[in-house]
Amino acid sequence: MAAGSRSSKKMRRNGVLLINLYVLSLFLLATTTASSSRCSIKGLPLVRNMSELPQDSYGIGGLSHTTVAGSALHGLKEVEVWLQTFSPGAVTPIHRHSCEEVFVVLKGSGTLYLASNSHEKYPGKPQEYFIFANSTFHIPVNDAHQILNTDEHEDMQLLAIISRPPVKVFIYEDWFMPHTAAKLKFPIFWDEQCLQAPPKDEL
Amino acid sequence: MAAGSRSSKKMRRNGVLLINLYVLSLFLLATTTASSSRCSIKGLPLVRNMSELPQDSYGIGGLSHTTVAGSALHGLKEVEVWLQTFSPGAVTPIHRHSCEEVFVVLKGSGTLYLASNSHEKYPGKPQEYFIFANSTFHIPVNDAHQILNTDEHEDMQLLAIISRPPVKVFIYEDWFMPHTAAKLKFPIFWDEQCLQAPPKDEL
Repeated sequence: MAAGSRSSKKMRRNGVLLINLYVLSLFLLATTTASSSRCSIKGLPLVRNMSELPQDSYGIGGLSHTTVAGSALHGLKEVEVWLQTFSPGAVTPIHRHSCEEVFVVLKGSGTLYLASNSHEKYPGKPQEYFIFANSTFHIPVNDAHQILNTDEHEDMQLLAIISRPPVKVFIYEDWFMPHTAAKLKFPIFWDEQCLQAPPKDEL
Repeated sequence: MAAGSRSSKKMRRNGVLLINLYVLSLFLLATTTASSSRCSIKGLPLVRNMSELPQDSYGIGGLSHTTVAGSALHGLKEVEVWLQTFSPGAVTPIHRHSCEEVFVVLKGSGTLYLASNSHEKYPGKPQEYFIFANSTFHIPVNDAHQILNTDEHEDMQLLAIISRPPVKVFIYEDWFMPHTAAKLKFPIFWDEQCLQAPPKDEL
């Protein structure tokens, strides 16, 4: 009985150990898969449902960002497409970049602030534009801009299209911060996990 | 009386002439305005309603094309965005280009045919993909492809995003035409009115 009880306890311990190992390996497998699917489209179909792609706020309150197609994830070199949803009040930082950018607003409405003073010392007071569903606009290269959902109730959803990814963004604390003091954010928030390479020496 | 009648006839002739000149000048003005607004965004607001932009089939049955932002119209050099609506049965030519291209399907559904044989002599039998609202895909550089609305009732609407505009498209008569026989269509249909410059020597 005593020997049988010891043997039985040992079997239970081994059983628990095996289950733990099994759970651990499942966890590791899941983590690895999640990590690789976030940074690679290998294994994903050519035609992808946008709502099934990874999305996150990346620390920007009220923002939901999805990289629809681009540099880090899809190996594109010339264009990148983002789908972004801003909840009421959500706002981007004031920022500039040397690439071209085109916006297409799909739903809701909001405000674009744009300061066309890239040749001055600082952006200065921006112009204000109402943006709305089915509207489009492009940002002149190197102009500081900011986008926000000024509607109190409705989400605003847009597609942002940039050239020459990965984007090198310079962020301003306010509209009167000198252009030279704006801080480079590279990789941009949503590229951080997948893009470790240093930027090319061109800004 | 006779003199009066001649004078009255002369006045009427002059009046008709003046009216004709007026109508002609109005017509010329309208033509010039239409032509300049089609090829320039000067005078248009920064934020534009997409449904108010010029749209046309450009001779492709069942297609409605709008250049949302791009080279000929907006002076962009790195990206161009098209909004296209395909009525049931509408189809693009089989074609290839060396720029990157990303699609976002906004409404409806259809079929993408894609032949990934740019290193062979001809495209060959293409693979067939179902494309649908909220789906996205990108075309590998230089792969021959064709898009069609295979739905019997519903329009298909999509955004096509290309790099390095203006696009230089090579059109195939069928999937077994050699790559070298595909015919350069430059400027592309919707750039014809606004773009007369020869393409750069890079294909």
